Amino acid sequence: MAGFVALAEQFIAHYYTTFDADRKNLASLYRDNSMLTFEGAQSLGAAAITEKLASLPFQKVVHRPSAQDAQPSPTGGIIILVTGQLLVDEEGNPLSYSQAFQLEKDGNGAWFVFNDIFRLVYG
Amino acid sequence: MAGFVALAEQFIAHYYTTFDADRKNLASLYRDNSMLTFEGAQSLGAAAITEKLASLPFQKVVHRPSAQDAQPSPTGGIIILVTGQLLVDEEGNPLSYSQAFQLEKDGNGAWFVFNDIFRLVYG
Repeated sequence: MAGFVALAEQFIAHYYTTFDADRKNLASLYRDNSMLTFEGAQSLGAAAITEKLASLPFQKVVHRPSAQDAQPSPTGGIIILVTGQLLVDEEGNPLSYSQAFQLEKDGNGAWFVFNDIFRLVYG
Repeated sequence: MAGFVALAEQFIAHYYTTFDADRKNLASLYRDNSMLTFEGAQSLGAAAITEKLASLPFQKVVHRPSAQDAQPSPTGGIIILVTGQLLVDEEGNPLSYSQAFQLEKDGNGAWFVFNDIFRLVYG
């Protein structure tokens, strides 16, 4: 599957830019069968996932991904592991995080997030 | 897919116990189409992956996974994100790490690691 690295890079740039600008706009990246596990809390489907992301207890956030690795999945999808740091609100100390995505194509050939798992990483 | 959480827990316990005891024995968990991306370096297939893991520049290692989250994949496989710490050789300071796995069943119905991505996380 040529091009999965470039596609992963484009996705990650788009995902965090959107998240940090207005995370409600991430809804279009999920579908009814998408899954999010955020700090152990599970959400199923684009509506529940968007609600969960919108409800997170901060107003401003800046993600700084420092490493991202991609591999093709068994279905021709893409699995991505991101590690990096994020800054929330006026907090000066960045938090380390890790996030795994699995991207799949929907029935119309558009990429969407099938699996999404997020964890803060404590040193 | 009932049971994927329990299966993920069993896999993670087995994987790190084996890694820390004698990591050459991880070979049986990979197949010819398995992929490893370790700190950005890619290996394809059980033989190359085992060689890569065996060549890592430490003798002793202890993994301490602190969080592990699992979701079913589109194919009935399992995707797992682990975050935790590891100690190498006589180094007293643990390193934070993150590792994503995708498990699939082979033609004989045995689970194996299709995707494996590892990154140290710097705070």
